[in-house]
Amino acid sequence: MHISEITHPNQLHGLSIRQLEDIAQQIREKHLETVAATGGHLGPGLGVVELTIGLYQTLDLDHDKVIWDVGHQAYPHKMLTGRYHDFHTLRQKDGIAGYLKRCENKFDHFGAGHASTSISAGLGMALARDSKGENFKVVSIIGDGALTGGMALEAINHAGHLPNTNLMVVLNDNEMSISPNVGAISRYLNKVRLSDPIQFITGNLEEQFKHLPLFGDGENLSAEMKNLKEAMKRLAMPKVGAVIEELGFTYFGPIDGHNLSELIDTFNKAHKVKGPVLVHVATVKGKGYALAEKDQVGYHAQNPFNLATGKPIPSNKPKPPSYSKVFAHTLTTLAANNPKIVGITAAMATGTGLDKLQQKLPDQYIDVGIAEQHAVTLAAGLACEGMRPVVAIYSTFLQRAYDQIIHDVCIQKLPVFFCLDRAGIVGADGPTHQGMYDIAYLRCIPNMVIMAPKDEAEMQRMIVTGINYTEGAIAMRYPRGSGIGVPLAEEGWEELEIGKGEILRQGDDILLLGYGSMVNTAMQTAGILSEHGIEATVVNARFVKPLDKELILPLAEKIGKVATLEEGCLIGGFGSAVAEALTEAEVMAKLKRFGVPDILVDHAKPDQSFADLGLTAPQISEQILSSWFAEKPAVVAS
Amino acid sequence: MHISEITHPNQLHGLSIRQLEDIAQQIREKHLETVAATGGHLGPGLGVVELTIGLYQTLDLDHDKVIWDVGHQAYPHKMLTGRYHDFHTLRQKDGIAGYLKRCENKFDHFGAGHASTSISAGLGMALARDSKGENFKVVSIIGDGALTGGMALEAINHAGHLPNTNLMVVLNDNEMSISPNVGAISRYLNKVRLSDPIQFITGNLEEQFKHLPLFGDGENLSAEMKNLKEAMKRLAMPKVGAVIEELGFTYFGPIDGHNLSELIDTFNKAHKVKGPVLVHVATVKGKGYALAEKDQVGYHAQNPFNLATGKPIPSNKPKPPSYSKVFAHTLTTLAANNPKIVGITAAMATGTGLDKLQQKLPDQYIDVGIAEQHAVTLAAGLACEGMRPVVAIYSTFLQRAYDQIIHDVCIQKLPVFFCLDRAGIVGADGPTHQGMYDIAYLRCIPNMVIMAPKDEAEMQRMIVTGINYTEGAIAMRYPRGSGIGVPLAEEGWEELEIGKGEILRQGDDILLLGYGSMVNTAMQTAGILSEHGIEATVVNARFVKPLDKELILPLAEKIGKVATLEEGCLIGGFGSAVAEALTEAEVMAKLKRFGVPDILVDHAKPDQSFADLGLTAPQISEQILSSWFAEKPAVVAS
Repeated sequence: MHISEITHPNQLHGLSIRQLEDIAQQIREKHLETVAATGGHLGPGLGVVELTIGLYQTLDLDHDKVIWDVGHQAYPHKMLTGRYHDFHTLRQKDGIAGYLKRCENKFDHFGAGHASTSISAGLGMALARDSKGENFKVVSIIGDGALTGGMALEAINHAGHLPNTNLMVVLNDNEMSISPNVGAISRYLNKVRLSDPIQFITGNLEEQFKHLPLFGDGENLSAEMKNLKEAMKRLAMPKVGAVIEELGFTYFGPIDGHNLSELIDTFNKAHKVKGPVLVHVATVKGKGYALAEKDQVGYHAQNPFNLATGKPIPSNKPKPPSYSKVFAHTLTTLAANNPKIVGITAAMATGTGLDKLQQKLPDQYIDVGIAEQHAVTLAAGLACEGMRPVVAIYSTFLQRAYDQIIHDVCIQKLPVFFCLDRAGIVGADGPTHQGMYDIAYLRCIPNMVIMAPKDEAEMQRMIVTGINYTEGAIAMRYPRGSGIGVPLAEEGWEELEIGKGEILRQGDDILLLGYGSMVNTAMQTAGILSEHGIEATVVNARFVKPLDKELILPLAEKIGKVATLEEGCLIGGFGSAVAEALTEAEVMAKLKRFGVPDILVDHAKPDQSFADLGLTAPQISEQILSSWFAEKPAVVAS
Repeated sequence: MHISEITHPNQLHGLSIRQLEDIAQQIREKHLETVAATGGHLGPGLGVVELTIGLYQTLDLDHDKVIWDVGHQAYPHKMLTGRYHDFHTLRQKDGIAGYLKRCENKFDHFGAGHASTSISAGLGMALARDSKGENFKVVSIIGDGALTGGMALEAINHAGHLPNTNLMVVLNDNEMSISPNVGAISRYLNKVRLSDPIQFITGNLEEQFKHLPLFGDGENLSAEMKNLKEAMKRLAMPKVGAVIEELGFTYFGPIDGHNLSELIDTFNKAHKVKGPVLVHVATVKGKGYALAEKDQVGYHAQNPFNLATGKPIPSNKPKPPSYSKVFAHTLTTLAANNPKIVGITAAMATGTGLDKLQQKLPDQYIDVGIAEQHAVTLAAGLACEGMRPVVAIYSTFLQRAYDQIIHDVCIQKLPVFFCLDRAGIVGADGPTHQGMYDIAYLRCIPNMVIMAPKDEAEMQRMIVTGINYTEGAIAMRYPRGSGIGVPLAEEGWEELEIGKGEILRQGDDILLLGYGSMVNTAMQTAGILSEHGIEATVVNARFVKPLDKELILPLAEKIGKVATLEEGCLIGGFGSAVAEALTEAEVMAKLKRFGVPDILVDHAKPDQSFADLGLTAPQISEQILSSWFAEKPAVVAS
């Protein structure tokens, strides 16, 4: 059978190991070929090809439910659940999503994108099943990286307390998150992998002890005998089992995640156990593509590349450096002269560029693993002692640390500098990763300054500003991808005054207020309007909090027509801040707010998303012209 | 020495055990006497009197830093750090706070109020210390309840990975959070307490093994011998040690938390150990007050009560039932007829009233412990399977699950019903507990309906509405404390139409838009304005999302002057939603927004807070009259 013939995962049931290995090989080829062409996540999916096939071979997926964590490793799952033929559309507009979505496929039982959610979701489904008196299996798959996220540990604490609730957790242990894992749990799992031979327990240990004459069924033993039994169990168990079993799970593993027979045997045995079960599977990220096995960080996710060489396919035109790169260079330069600066990330070293800080100044760099909550409160602790913590976390992932920002940083007015990469439209990663809400969710917190640079040069000035600001928290948001190509100074960046915007262009017909990445669009819009005889004043707001009311309100009063432009949700965002300021001052200007409406933005190229949202300069100009200047004739030909 | 003579905790240094026991007794008396008079947290502080004294006796608190978790157990700490003489002002306006605040006292090194933060904060301080080349001890105290919060587990994962960073974690194990703890970790700790005699290891186990001839220094052992050594270590260690030591901590305990000699001996030994150390202290919540030891849930926190009888001091006038009570009664009634309803809380069973559901319908109740993130994603999993999860979490604690609300519930459009108790002004608990931000932080999320009842009867209708709504997430916020005393139906509550407000009063001079608890204030304001000849239309908005624009916009257009009233932050809140709607429709009405400005609201009686914020009906009327109706003479005498 060829993978292209599989439209339902239950078709795996009758197949021999040899046939399953062929399917695995075919999935790997399609996976590599597709990601090389479209870009996407490479290493994670290649590592779980056999795990996916082996698990699905032991399940009845018309009833049983598999919950994947994060979802970027679920490409093999997608190919086995009827999406093989569309797989070439991966991460393209209207094509197959790069993560899981309930609305995409009935086998995507729980959407994902962020890490550490699968056990909680799976346990919810298992409890619902039992409440309804139904009978199906629930399997939550989680990576060892995601296991360091507090939510996963909360879920294990709960599941381990429910001996009558059947739930299988498959630990996909590849010793990596995006970067090599950090933390005691990871070190511990690593110890198990290194010191124990590949082995597994052939059933619940408790069951086995029942058959030993000394212990019997355990109910009538003296305390001493019980203790001895416990100690013997510990001796008999692989080490990781001791911890996991103490938390109420029956432990199987570690097993070779690329050996289909072993996987199938173990899953079949584990399915028979009552209560929560953990199957520890050792996998190799990037398995089957030598370059990816060797450089697991580099091949976690890829832009389109040449399969033979592994090299990225060169873009037609050279691009300006990315915001992340400029951020990393600037921060590292400043940190070299200020030992109090500490860069903190939560498993986003390469994405945020902080790996550069790590290389140059390892003592001023902390990666806490997938643990955004801890990252922020750790930063608060550092700030208490006079350090200058710089927390670099994507806009979407900072949502995980919302209470810590309020409770541990802002209520205490601690000087923590938040740098929110990938704020706004993120493109191919889709709705789970869009950085839409940060302006709204940060703006309502007291003791928080919020800014966004109009370009990468202004970003450098804002980094200096953020480092120097010590009266409370300060946040800077910036977009994913390249800057706009302005010249950059190598050093000597000048601080900005907190809460002060700047006028970029003068005109009497309309006031365009741009925030961050949309300042450039505001200038383009002004250019188009000018071609129609409408002259705009353009303000680069720089700060949404405090908003530069001194600058903005008199202009709004005088001009009477105001448009705000932002790359974020309209509800509670920058335009909303302007609406609040105008009403508070009883300035009776008309206001149009351009930004992202109250919808989810699907995966697509960023340009496509902007166009779909009506956020290009021509679209904004058109809107303004038709609503407010319809009577004026279009004066100038262009 | 008497506790009243202690102005600095280092004064404990010279004292004998007998003298320390006397101090303990004096602290207990003052603690009981104060809480009986002012109200506050009773059981938590009584449980850690000896722990606090014993620990402080072993530290130099001019340099060493102790980080308390939550802070409601830090009353003994407050008395030992110069606040004994002011302690009678506990939780009163301008008095001693019920939690910890950096700005209140130099020994409050990290503010608290929410659980599970102390290890992260302490680790941040320890890393800062080492970076600066300083030398002081950092001790983080955490309860066994708070240890189930994911953030604490993230911090342990990080700290356990840093063998050269000295950090002491004191586990205050009283087997309780507010309610008895749930979860595998708690069950595990309980097993240790029950099965092991009180004992402690007299140093790092590794050190002891060095002196055994068979093992030597461990470097040159064969793999087999290393395994045997590990196994023997496990046999020698108390059980909890096996888990904690595997995570990189040196373990001491469990020790008797009310035996000062044992505490002091153990802390002194533990201070000598390099790297992360955990001292497991078994305490009794409510220790020394028999009634509180017996009813640990009931005496967690108290209103003023009679010390001799333990009974609450009866209030002068009978109060209407609290919103929490009405919520619990209504939900339990509905759940009895609908087995799909599941009430979920995160260690707030009594506070939310869900203990009533637990008693009547235990199979439809889930307490996940202090684990808000897991609670929300668990609910998402339940919703996937057609259950009707009702998540009852205080407004302030729901901040912990912000990403889960966005990523796991709303992006997937899952029907989870969020019931936010204690939304708005909370009174004596102060800034960490104010429910200020929920309107702003929820409003920006797609697929989320948000509502607030004007009184407890409307709340019952909203509960029916929330249960019946299946097109996505829905949230209801309601205040702490009593309803306003309207008649309540026993059953048969009528569903409300989503997104529809109601007109409560007609008038042509001003439009008052009330949301939730402030609708009542809007009606009072209208009454006062009427006495001045100003007639108001009053609208009960009911929904902030979707806002009833059909109702509101024509009224605003016609009347021209609009005031919004809400019990929450002004930035991004209800008034902001109205500002957005007005500007979007280009309705050029004047708008005043009444709510909580961009400040932290300190502890005080709720009435005092409302007055301080200018949110009483007379104050609002005055503001409206002086700004908008100054020319009109005050017509009517009253």
